Amino acid sequence: MHFNELNPPERLLLGPGPSNVNPRVLKALSSPLVGYMDPFYLKVMDETKDLLKYVFKTKNEFTFPIPGSGMAGMEAALCNVIEIGDEVLVCVNGFFGERMNELVLRIGGIPIRIDAGWGKIITNESVEEALKESNAKAIAIVHGETSTGIQQPIKELSKLAKSYDALLIVDAVTSLGGCKLDIDAWGIDICYSGTQKCLNCPPGLAPITLSNNALYAIQNRKTKIQSFYLDLQLINKYWTEERVYHHTGPISMTYALREALRIIHEEGIENRLIRHSRNSQAFIKGIEAMGLEMHAQENYRLPSLNTVVIPKGITDVNVRRMLFDCFNLEIGGGLGMLKGKIWRVGLMGRNSTEKNVILLLEALERTLRKEGYHKSNSGVGAAIDFYDST
Amino acid sequence: MHFNELNPPERLLLGPGPSNVNPRVLKALSSPLVGYMDPFYLKVMDETKDLLKYVFKTKNEFTFPIPGSGMAGMEAALCNVIEIGDEVLVCVNGFFGERMNELVLRIGGIPIRIDAGWGKIITNESVEEALKESNAKAIAIVHGETSTGIQQPIKELSKLAKSYDALLIVDAVTSLGGCKLDIDAWGIDICYSGTQKCLNCPPGLAPITLSNNALYAIQNRKTKIQSFYLDLQLINKYWTEERVYHHTGPISMTYALREALRIIHEEGIENRLIRHSRNSQAFIKGIEAMGLEMHAQENYRLPSLNTVVIPKGITDVNVRRMLFDCFNLEIGGGLGMLKGKIWRVGLMGRNSTEKNVILLLEALERTLRKEGYHKSNSGVGAAIDFYDST
Repeated sequence: MHFNELNPPERLLLGPGPSNVNPRVLKALSSPLVGYMDPFYLKVMDETKDLLKYVFKTKNEFTFPIPGSGMAGMEAALCNVIEIGDEVLVCVNGFFGERMNELVLRIGGIPIRIDAGWGKIITNESVEEALKESNAKAIAIVHGETSTGIQQPIKELSKLAKSYDALLIVDAVTSLGGCKLDIDAWGIDICYSGTQKCLNCPPGLAPITLSNNALYAIQNRKTKIQSFYLDLQLINKYWTEERVYHHTGPISMTYALREALRIIHEEGIENRLIRHSRNSQAFIKGIEAMGLEMHAQENYRLPSLNTVVIPKGITDVNVRRMLFDCFNLEIGGGLGMLKGKIWRVGLMGRNSTEKNVILLLEALERTLRKEGYHKSNSGVGAAIDFYDST
Repeated sequence: MHFNELNPPERLLLGPGPSNVNPRVLKALSSPLVGYMDPFYLKVMDETKDLLKYVFKTKNEFTFPIPGSGMAGMEAALCNVIEIGDEVLVCVNGFFGERMNELVLRIGGIPIRIDAGWGKIITNESVEEALKESNAKAIAIVHGETSTGIQQPIKELSKLAKSYDALLIVDAVTSLGGCKLDIDAWGIDICYSGTQKCLNCPPGLAPITLSNNALYAIQNRKTKIQSFYLDLQLINKYWTEERVYHHTGPISMTYALREALRIIHEEGIENRLIRHSRNSQAFIKGIEAMGLEMHAQENYRLPSLNTVVIPKGITDVNVRRMLFDCFNLEIGGGLGMLKGKIWRVGLMGRNSTEKNVILLLEALERTLRKEGYHKSNSGVGAAIDFYDST
């Protein structure tokens, strides 16, 4: 057995995540370790929490990163609240809504599905109807559907949830730090995310925040949570003054997350959202000028994840391989039923730039031409026109 | 809100973990990210798997790191195998045995406790007796009890387990890479560890390995595993040729783990174990020369975690604070019922050196003297004598 020194290629990561990480974050990641109860680390935890509250726009004290990927966030959000036999409205309009349904089933809850087409939003009417006809303890919905590129409106849903006394659980894995999300103003009860998308931190942590209502529901469970690892009350005891040992904290990853959030704080979350929106708009102008079509419903598109319908006669894998081989550039293919049908273009955090939009459009244009797709209008030209005019 | 650049102090981490990390590992950790399905990353995964098999001494194909801390390893080991109503023999002689018991209860299993004093091993006789009187599906036991410093003999237990058709689940969080552990030769069915102890990698991943018997038990469950995140068969599909998406892989941490394992492979696992044993022996010679007592039962002491009884009249916290303030040196206090009663001294992986043993004994001697503890014999002298004579 022989193993070489690690020497990864430098990719431009414009897929569904991970996104590229600021060298400052990599530097923080590789800082010397201290103990998991070291006063220095406890301060890092406190600051990370403050920064997460800033990015989530919340005053919730119950806010910290779970030591696992975004999937661990989804599982924690659901399994801490739902007990066997609880009804849960599960909104399914993509791969991750489907997964929420699977998780509710495993936990022993009774999922009541609200289905919409992949690439469409869930309507308030369909949720209200389901609320009327059920005794739902919670509504589970995806804010930024990474599989379809849909940005789900949340604010009105939240009012509905409150009027029917249901908790609102929101997946913000692909939206936090890149799309408007306002936990307190919108009244979201549980919201989780991942580090590797718009936060530009390596994958491995799942920021989560809980309202007092959510906490009350957990504190008043009749049965213990099956998972010890994802028991949010126990994790919280490590993240608050009690500092009770639950697991050995992911020191290095927390260093990295703190730095990634510090960068967001320096830019200002509002500036960051404007930047995401602008670059996504430019990209869409370019795509449409090239005669291509966006997959996600208009007016509800995620600026951080842009889905493009693969034109007829073009083979998904060929295009992605060419982008990869010639430009060291990764974009995502479709997930689940959209495999081979769409491309998923992540413009996440620091990857949401004019430079990347123009490079990608140029690369895509050239690649499609080689594959026999010809349209007279230039995508790059349209994007540049957009930038110049705004 | 203002947040400074991260600038951690440089600690010598001789507590229960994390241990200090080789700069090579920190360099790997901070390498550029690639996508979680990037051919480069898939190769890193394959190599990490091969290296884990080397360190675990196993041919088990079902070997990979779980994306969570050692606690996630414990939970995955138990919740994948145990179904509601299953009897499990849980060996409890420390904090982590107690935790296994708690987990079995949460999962809905029926724990049958085998208790021994904290600091004592679990005897084969007590296990055989319990096996006779029960219908246990599995035995759960800790190989290296981080709370007591006990190294549990496993080989004979494994034979017992087989003769009663029970799976053997072993916690090797503090032993893997520092203590003799031979998955295949000993016939262990499930074994998990953590990255931050004798592997000298930051905390956040939990290597695990499963025998065919364990896999068979999982495949023949009557009910679905409640946890999706810790569903080992699903994680395995990402770690084998199928490459089915389950979660976004913890790219950076896997880079780091591969490098940490590569360093172990370069040293050779056998050399590494000899080194651990030698330095632990020297440390014990020094401690005993100073008139102090080891907590863990003789002949069954973990070389990677050495427990020292705090002498009468000495205040735990004062000593640890002085070591911390004057030497930037962390040792651990007692956990659970041993709080204030013992110190836990980790000599893990690259921290198991002559230099660290001598420094720690010297620092401890000086600190104890300041606290009013006087013995004529020099701990450092005894350790040096040991080194010189072996």
